[in-house]
Amino acid sequence: MATRREHTSHESSERILSAAAELFAEKGYRQTTFAAVAERSGISRGSIPWHFGSKEGLLLAVLERSVQLISAGLAEEPADAEGAQAGLDRIVEGAHALWALPTTKLFATLLVEALEPDSPIHGRYAEIHHTLRDHCRRRLERLELPPGISAEALSAAIIGAGIGIHQQWLLAPDRVDAERALAALRAMVAAVVTPAGT
Amino acid sequence: MATRREHTSHESSERILSAAAELFAEKGYRQTTFAAVAERSGISRGSIPWHFGSKEGLLLAVLERSVQLISAGLAEEPADAEGAQAGLDRIVEGAHALWALPTTKLFATLLVEALEPDSPIHGRYAEIHHTLRDHCRRRLERLELPPGISAEALSAAIIGAGIGIHQQWLLAPDRVDAERALAALRAMVAAVVTPAGT
Repeated sequence: MATRREHTSHESSERILSAAAELFAEKGYRQTTFAAVAERSGISRGSIPWHFGSKEGLLLAVLERSVQLISAGLAEEPADAEGAQAGLDRIVEGAHALWALPTTKLFATLLVEALEPDSPIHGRYAEIHHTLRDHCRRRLERLELPPGISAEALSAAIIGAGIGIHQQWLLAPDRVDAERALAALRAMVAAVVTPAGT
Repeated sequence: MATRREHTSHESSERILSAAAELFAEKGYRQTTFAAVAERSGISRGSIPWHFGSKEGLLLAVLERSVQLISAGLAEEPADAEGAQAGLDRIVEGAHALWALPTTKLFATLLVEALEPDSPIHGRYAEIHHTLRDHCRRRLERLELPPGISAEALSAAIIGAGIGIHQQWLLAPDRVDAERALAALRAMVAAVVTPAGT
């Protein structure tokens, strides 16, 4: 059983992570200071490096936590074609639920950091894209695709649409109806795939 | 006729704009200094504010120039359904040509700035998305779409896919085949639209 001290330490680091995820999402990485994280989390400024080392360490921990949240939402479905199609629908619907979390904006505000080849998050961020494509690809492989179109290429297009609809909506929530755009994406996917063997 | 002095001034501001677009694309906005723009362009540091006022003015001018480049690539096609379908193909193919320009990375590195509601580029950046959707929507409106799917929603999904494929490829060019992902997007679009009247 965890001791009381361990409980408290875990709680503190969770509070720091939540506050940091919010602030990175709101302001981006460079504009976020330990002082702001301390204020938002109610944890003393001095104990943040004790938990996460540097600001870079905090950033990596925040990303790691987001990856766990996303992966948890992508459980496997039955291996038949019907399950695969339901699974694709779930990925697209999952996008909508994901966007409802304010911290999903994190991925948009951290993009500039991720694009620096020697940034600490470059590899981790690319890995998140890969994980999403992979979930999508495994479902597509159980379905019949048009000639010349691979499950891998189609995954990049579907996950890409999710990323790009999200960003358009973040920039102009009054002008972009994210829910209807996702429905249009679902219609495009349904039009191009057929259950294998039909 | 433009005088020699005007020619020179126009040439200088073009050189500054090219250098700034490259540097913003490579490093993002905040990491780019007037000194770096001066070094890259070969124009003296002091004359940059003379041309563009502040760094913010330079950023806006760089965005404006990119918008002109994009718009020039989106000429209108004949108003019939065949022309509309060819036009959609051209938008998707145009994406590939656009990504070949190193400065297209600009849109990814400037996203964090654009997301700040009071940023000078927020409105301009959102307007670029809107222009792209609009070009796409006008073509879709000449075609038959599935019931319940509007041209507007489908435009957001198609432009979104372009944005998102680009970013996946920027982050992992060895793992994402952008050309094949665009071909998959084209197949999805073709599967969902039918020429009106058929």
